[in-house]
Amino acid sequence: WEIIQVNGEQRLERIYKFPNFESALHFTNQVGAIAETEGHHPALLTEWGKVTVTWWTHAISGLHQNDFIMAAKTDNIAATLAQK
Amino acid sequence: WEIIQVNGEQRLERIYKFPNFESALHFTNQVGAIAETEGHHPALLTEWGKVTVTWWTHAISGLHQNDFIMAAKTDNIAATLAQK
Repeated sequence: WEIIQVNGEQRLERIYKFPNFESALHFTNQVGAIAETEGHHPALLTEWGKVTVTWWTHAISGLHQNDFIMAAKTDNIAATLAQK
Repeated sequence: WEIIQVNGEQRLERIYKFPNFESALHFTNQVGAIAETEGHHPALLTEWGKVTVTWWTHAISGLHQNDFIMAAKTDNIAATLAQK
């Protein structure tokens, strides 16, 4: 994960690679599902062969501990998919 | 739709608004489905309450007639969802 600055706000961002569009979109849906469960929502940029995930907390215009937890959960999803 | 410049390439971009994350992700999946059917893939930025759709043709580093057709199909999906 990389800490990026967007309009002066810190965000956590990571790019995940996939073999095609379909598997990228599948990952997006899996991350979307935990976002709904946790009530905390990332930006998910889905493209052919990759998904860029960005976590931050709007309410504090930056990073909260929860963003790092969600980042770790996102990694878990990617690891689980990679094993299939 | 707006024509934007990214690294000197022209792309078609439009932002669609939704009442929550779930409906935004549902739209992303619908657009993803036509992308798979047509074999032409956009960038889909899914966030809470909005999806930013970007169409362009990698092979020519810009816009092809097909991008405008896909943009129209994307509008059709949004219109159909709005009627539900």
